[in-house]
Amino acid sequence: MQLLAIGVVESPLTDPAAAPKQGNEGSPDAWLVFDADHADGLDGIREGDEILVLTWLDRADRSVLRVHPRDDPANPQRGVFSTRSADRPNPIGLHRVNVLAIDGRRLHVRNLEAVDGTPIVDVKPVLSAVDR
Amino acid sequence: MQLLAIGVVESPLTDPAAAPKQGNEGSPDAWLVFDADHADGLDGIREGDEILVLTWLDRADRSVLRVHPRDDPANPQRGVFSTRSADRPNPIGLHRVNVLAIDGRRLHVRNLEAVDGTPIVDVKPVLSAVDR
Repeated sequence: MQLLAIGVVESPLTDPAAAPKQGNEGSPDAWLVFDADHADGLDGIREGDEILVLTWLDRADRSVLRVHPRDDPANPQRGVFSTRSADRPNPIGLHRVNVLAIDGRRLHVRNLEAVDGTPIVDVKPVLSAVDR
Repeated sequence: MQLLAIGVVESPLTDPAAAPKQGNEGSPDAWLVFDADHADGLDGIREGDEILVLTWLDRADRSVLRVHPRDDPANPQRGVFSTRSADRPNPIGLHRVNVLAIDGRRLHVRNLEAVDGTPIVDVKPVLSAVDR
């Protein structure tokens, strides 16, 4: 179960502690830059699409099983699987973003809270019947 | 970027070719069985919750970059990242399911199209503001 980076996030966000906790909480626009080897997989993605981007949150602490939600000590601790904490056994980030523009194997997107240099591992379309 | 199984799917579905393509297309109920080492991460998940389950689709072909959507040759080929094909460079399955019952570190769920024995790698809550 070895993940392979298919691309990387280019973003003005560099400090995970200062990054928004969710994409719709004030994230800057960012670029998804895909490797040439995987560019054929992008065919069919269009400007204006909403897509799901899966990343590998490589700064996360994989030993964490319980957290205070939103890093607020006033929130009682919960299991990480009932939160969107980056710290979790498999730190896969799930981001729903809007495609603003496409330039070859680079996608310009809105609402991505991942920091610069975060590896991209997958992209999926939003399915209205399943994801609503 | 090494994924770790945190649990496994127990389902009457055993043949990937016969499994529904999406959870809401006639999937049977299934159990998510978590390892004892990761059970603390489940705290906070309740019966009635909708959750996102991430799996590792270990029967997938990771070399595929283009597919006929829904395996129908009448559909023109597209890049895998604009489809929900299991065949893709990192075959992470993303499943939105309903929690019917909780029995210790076993969750009974509705609408899971993954086959029996599929490794579970993550669980996340549905966020209404992000996932709708």
